[in-house]
Parts: sequence; C-alpha cells; structure tokens
Amino acid sequence: MTDIFEVPIPDTDLLDKAENLRLASIKTCQTNNNERIRALCLMADSLEENSKEIIDANIQDYEKAKNKGISKALLSRLKLSKEKLNLGIEGVRKVGDLSDPIGQIQIKKELSRGLILERKTVPIGVLGVIFESRPDAVMQISSLAIRSGNGVMLKGGSEANLTNLAIVSALKKGLQKSNLDEKAICLLTTRKDSMAMLKLEKYINLIIPRGSNELVKFIQENTRIPVLGHADGICHLYIDNELNLDHALKVALDSKIQYPAACNAIETLLIHKDIAPNFLKKAIPIFNANNVKLVGDEKSVQLGVAFEANYKDWQTEYLDLILSIKIVDHLEEAIAHIQKFSSKHTDGIITTNINNANKFMSEIDSAGVFHNCSTRFADGFRYGFGAEVGISTQALPPRGPVGLEGLVTYKYFLRGEGHIVDDFSLGKSIYTHKDL
Amino acid sequence: MTDIFEVPIPDTDLLDKAENLRLASIKTCQTNNNERIRALCLMADSLEENSKEIIDANIQDYEKAKNKGISKALLSRLKLSKEKLNLGIEGVRKVGDLSDPIGQIQIKKELSRGLILERKTVPIGVLGVIFESRPDAVMQISSLAIRSGNGVMLKGGSEANLTNLAIVSALKKGLQKSNLDEKAICLLTTRKDSMAMLKLEKYINLIIPRGSNELVKFIQENTRIPVLGHADGICHLYIDNELNLDHALKVALDSKIQYPAACNAIETLLIHKDIAPNFLKKAIPIFNANNVKLVGDEKSVQLGVAFEANYKDWQTEYLDLILSIKIVDHLEEAIAHIQKFSSKHTDGIITTNINNANKFMSEIDSAGVFHNCSTRFADGFRYGFGAEVGISTQALPPRGPVGLEGLVTYKYFLRGEGHIVDDFSLGKSIYTHKDL
Repeated sequence: MTDIFEVPIPDTDLLDKAENLRLASIKTCQTNNNERIRALCLMADSLEENSKEIIDANIQDYEKAKNKGISKALLSRLKLSKEKLNLGIEGVRKVGDLSDPIGQIQIKKELSRGLILERKTVPIGVLGVIFESRPDAVMQISSLAIRSGNGVMLKGGSEANLTNLAIVSALKKGLQKSNLDEKAICLLTTRKDSMAMLKLEKYINLIIPRGSNELVKFIQENTRIPVLGHADGICHLYIDNELNLDHALKVALDSKIQYPAACNAIETLLIHKDIAPNFLKKAIPIFNANNVKLVGDEKSVQLGVAFEANYKDWQTEYLDLILSIKIVDHLEEAIAHIQKFSSKHTDGIITTNINNANKFMSEIDSAGVFHNCSTRFADGFRYGFGAEVGISTQALPPRGPVGLEGLVTYKYFLRGEGHIVDDFSLGKSIYTHKDL
Repeated sequence: MTDIFEVPIPDTDLLDKAENLRLASIKTCQTNNNERIRALCLMADSLEENSKEIIDANIQDYEKAKNKGISKALLSRLKLSKEKLNLGIEGVRKVGDLSDPIGQIQIKKELSRGLILERKTVPIGVLGVIFESRPDAVMQISSLAIRSGNGVMLKGGSEANLTNLAIVSALKKGLQKSNLDEKAICLLTTRKDSMAMLKLEKYINLIIPRGSNELVKFIQENTRIPVLGHADGICHLYIDNELNLDHALKVALDSKIQYPAACNAIETLLIHKDIAPNFLKKAIPIFNANNVKLVGDEKSVQLGVAFEANYKDWQTEYLDLILSIKIVDHLEEAIAHIQKFSSKHTDGIITTNINNANKFMSEIDSAGVFHNCSTRFADGFRYGFGAEVGISTQALPPRGPVGLEGLVTYKYFLRGEGHIVDDFSLGKSIYTHKDL
C-alpha cells in the first residue's frame, strides 16, 4: 500500500478532466431545486435501466479480486448484489427528498437606503472524494454532490473499477436527460490520478477522504485543499462516582462493542476510583462474555483487569474488541486525560451529578460531548441529518457528523443604485444597518 | 525582511507560554456573557489608568524607529496619540456592546424520547494573531478574543514592542480584577517566536495574519493550523453595455481611488466593447485628474489609455493608483477573465440589465459579488458586523468580511438517560427526530 503515498504532478489528461469538471460545476451551481431533484430521479431511473450491466461488471470485479486472494471482509464489501444495488438506487431517490441546502438566506439587511446585502448559501464548487472499495458509495456521494449543486471528482478502490465505471456511466446517462451537465461527475480509475488530485487546488475546493487513518493523515499532510474528515477516532467514556450503575454498564458496553470498527466506538474507559471496584466487579465478566480484551493501568489490574496497559494504549485507536481502562482520582483527572489524548471526535460522561456533567461537557473541546448515552450515537443519520458525508474533528466548522450542509458555503450579494463609499466618508450618506 | 520567513522549532519558553495560554483559554471558554462584558470594562478602565505609561512607551518606540530611518507611513501608523489611544479604549468598550456570539443554539432536537441533541456555538479556543506595527490593533484584537471567549497569542511589529508591552500589561491588570485568567492574553515580542507560533498546532486553533501579502502567503504555506485571511485582493469591476453611465463612472472611480491600498479596491476594469468608446472618453480625464495611471489592452490603448498592459498586469494587486483596463466582447468574456484572475475577494458589475447582473453574480464564485455599487463596501463595519477580524477569500466559511462570528465554532451536546444504539438496531427504540 505504500506506493499510493506519492503525489505525482497532474498530467494533461487529468488537468483537462478537472477543467471540464470545473466548468460543469459552474453550470450545476446555477440549477434550481427542481432541476436538481429531477436530475436525481433521472440518475436513479438510469441506474435501474442499467442494473444488469452494473451487476455483470461487479461479478467480473469480484472474480478478479477473489483470484487475487483479497480478504473475505473486502470481498464482502466489494460484492454488489441486486438487493444492495436497489438499496443504493433508493438512496439516490431519498437524497432528492432532503431539503435544499442551496439559496438559504442567512443574512438580509439594508446597509443604507437602496443598498441591500444578502448572504446566501451556495455550492462549494467541486468536491474531490477518495473512498474505499464499497461501490455503493459512488451512488451515495454522487447524489449528495448533485443535490448540493456541486461537481464531484471520484476515486474508488481499484478492485471495484469496472463496477464504478458502470455505475458512473449510468449516472451520466441520467444526467444527460436532465438540465445538468453530465461532466459534473468525473470518475478517476488510477491510483496515480487519485493522488495527483491533491495538487488540483485550482479545480477542487474540498477533499473528502473516506478510508484508512493512514490514508486520511497522508492526504491532510499533502494537500493545500481543505480536507473534511478525521484521521483518528480516540473516544473516551468517563464513569463518575455518582451514577446509575446499570446505565454505566450498558452504555460502556454499547460504546465499545456495538460496532468496534467504527470511529465513534470508545477506546478508553476512565473510572472514578470510588466506584471502580464495584463497577469493574460487574463490568469485567460482561466484557469477557463479549470477547473484549481489557488492558488497564496498575490500579485497574489490581481490581481484576487481565492485562497491563502501556503509554501507547492511551494513544491507540484499536478499532477492535480491545478497551483500555484507567482509574482516576476525580473528574479533573479524567478531563485532563481526555484533553491530552482525545482526538476530539466524541467523549462521554456517565453521571447523575448535573454539575459534573456540565463541567465535563464544557471543558472537553471535542466535536461531540455526551452525557448518559452511548458514543455510538455520533452519526449523521442518528442525528437526523438524512445523510452523512463524513465526520470532522477539526476545531472550525463544519465539525462532528456533517450532512448536506457541509457541502455548501455562502456568498455575499450586495446590490445598490450607484452607491459609493466616499459619500459615506463625507457624511452625504449614512448607514442604516436594518435587518430585512 | 526575508529573515522573518523561517519557521524555527518552538523553544521550551514558548511551549510553556502556549500551554498556560491553552489552560487559561479553557477557563475563558466557560465564562458567561456578563463576566466577559465585565472583563472588557475592566480592561478599558485599566488602559485609562495606565495611559501615561502607554503613551510614554510609544514615544520611546517612535524615537527609536525615527532614528532607524523608518518610512513616514510606518511612523505615522506607529504613533499612538492620546486621541488614538482614547479611540482604542472606546473600541474595547464597544466590543462589549456587540451581542454575545457564544451559546447560540443552532440545532435543538429530540433524537428519541429522553435523548436530546443540541448544537451550540462555543469559542474556538486559542487564536494566534500576527499583525503589523499599528499598536491600536492590540486593544482591538484582545477585546474581540475575550468577547468571544477565546485566548489569544499576539505578535505585533517589533517597532512597537514597548507600546504593545505597555498595552498588554494594562489589559492583564484589568483581567486580574475580572473572573478571567490574565494568561488568556499572551504577547510575543520576538520575530523568532512569532514564526515558531506556526508550529503550535497543538495549542493554537486559528491563525489570523494581518500583514503584507508576502507574509500571509508564507503563513498559509507553512502551517497546518487553519488560517483566516487572504493574500491577494485582485478585485474587478465589469462595465456592461446596458447601464447608467454616471453610476458606472462614479462607482469605478470610488472602487479605485477611495483607498487604493485596501484589499477591496479594484485592480482591473473590464468594459463591454459597445460602451467602451463612450465610457473611456469620459473616464480617462477623470482618472487622469485623480492621478490614476491607466494601463490597458490593445483595444483600450486605441481608445486613449496611455500605457499598454502585459499579462502580468491581470495578476497584479497594485495597492496603488494604477488601474488595468480590458475591453471585452460580451459578459461571458468578462466572467471568464474574472474566473481566471480574481482572487475571489470581491467582484462587481455595473448594469441595468437584471439578467446580466444575476448571471454575473451567480457565475462568479468570489466571497462578494456586487451590483451597481463600489467594491469598497466589502468590509465588516460597512456590512454592520460591528467589528472585523479579517476578510477571507477561501471557498469554505467563514468567508468575506468576518466579524465576531468568525471567532466561534460549535459543538454537539447529546444528553440521554442511559440510551444505547443497540436498542435502536434491535427495534426496541425508535428515532423521533423532532425539532424542539
């Protein structure tokens, strides 16, 4: 995998594609809500009409990958059954049901008589999305991009190349029947091109990587284009000494095992020393019964945790059924640990003491701070956004689970009647600054 | 000036300062509106009490700079008269009058019974601000940072070191009497430290450079911390063939000469070929009378523009009384030129044809798109934001003139009663997703 980690100079062919995409995205920017909804319907229809070609292409990809000896997990993600395809097509139609993120008026005011300022949401322009082998992602990402009026340059896993080509070909056929330019969707198929994408800062306005931590980190460090996403998801749960023990046990278990490979699963459990003996007496058998390997600090090992943790454990996103445990003297120690090791994704507290909860939620500067519930809720669909393009752990917006709203920006529109600044400097005109 | 353009490794002393600042900023995050308003009052009071020390320090800085042979323009910006200081103090009090940007509820909804999601604005954390010699900027930036609950690391021009130290000392004395930690403001005095700041990504969440294009560009390219700002301000005005000629003339003049060193002044005037003879016949004498040097393409030279422009002119931010002029065949050519050369700050159109205006404002993806008014209105105060921390030309928010709102981010707060995701997977619980 290391050869993907080079950034070649974009060649003429890629630059041409990027320029065509940019021009198509300018047209896409200007479509109205109905045109974009209609385009999504036509894209979905076209996927249905071409489903045989797509499934056939996927069978070829699958056989090739199988012969190459690709892992079972990857094979199962690569496989696009008729059911999975239908769900994907249904997903494209559902994106049409989401409310229009474009043209929302955020500010409207009179600066002076006849001089009107508006701030309205507009598409970002061109998105660059690099994702893994799941071919259904092509449908989801393309439909979110079109819904929000953006162009999109896509690069999926090479194992799924034929499937992705068949899907994009169908999507483009749909777009051809719409008012949108089919060039608004552009699929890259070589690893070289996908890395050269990082240099296309004149054409691409936002990169969304959906892949391994290693890949995301590499992208963040090797492009001047803004990157929406997170590398690590080191989430914590702190068990306070004032608590409902049943809540603590079930939330801790759910936060770890409900889907351990997810970024919002916890890696470290912090436990107040006063409750630790009682909590661990009940928790250890439950974790054992669920095949969770526990590694802990000295104090927790004394209370029955099987393995000793080292410093690296506090920095590790296991993405697996492993949980590190630390006993703390007080809330402040838990907060200090989280401030040091959290990747600012999601951190939670279990307590019945509302002051402790508020202090925790105020002092921890992660994108999500949770009280008495599982960290696994940190997700765009669970938040009711209808779609999730990624989760950002950056300090600035958009952060946390990002829905369609993360694919738009805004622009200031100022309309006058020959207004000039000098008239205001000279006192001939005055600012009214009235909200409209 | 080239020796500022190196990024040294932060030394222990700087790292200590940064860590103290980070801790102080966590406390600042948690203050309420009244506490922050009171802190601003105390800061202003303390500036008044220490105004003699501040003025004396400024006299020393001024004498030193004068002996060094610093330019008159810089000297006049360095000079802090009693009147300028009083205006600065008044400014600190006025920042207190701006509405609280913190704690605004952006989203509040029930995800399921008893599981409540809130998205609220919170301070970003720590701001790093690198600015030029104007010592009044210290007061302005510090008060904006405190108003928005952030800590701030400041580095001003070294010519103003004594003045800046005296001002920051007074501000800290004020903070000591408040509930806020005086360490929330940290002044750096060496060039080495200010460049090492770029490496403090663990401590600083946003860098705001206020200086030369060269400095801003260097910072953008040499830090992984998000940068709020713009390097170039290459703004355009397009004169359409359907127009009010008087409006066109006065807006073009104001956009160029009202303050030519500003980033929102125009550098290039694009003129529709049909109106060009008529427009230039009137405009050339006006520009000449105002000492504006005109450089133009071949066609405009034929119509009387004195100097011929070369390719570089379209890429140059003159910041001076120079204007490049190009005759275009139609609106589309003007749009294409702007898309190619604009720095995406502010671009305007003069036309009485509303369709042309809409097409222009929709296809140009600059932070500000203006119709029949001067580009010089692109400014936080003129927009009525009460304060401006900078102007961003990036595609993602915050863009355009940024007020206090640009100094906050948001965080998701989720509160439950022992809710776990598995119950929803198993169908035991359901999502309600009700707005509250």
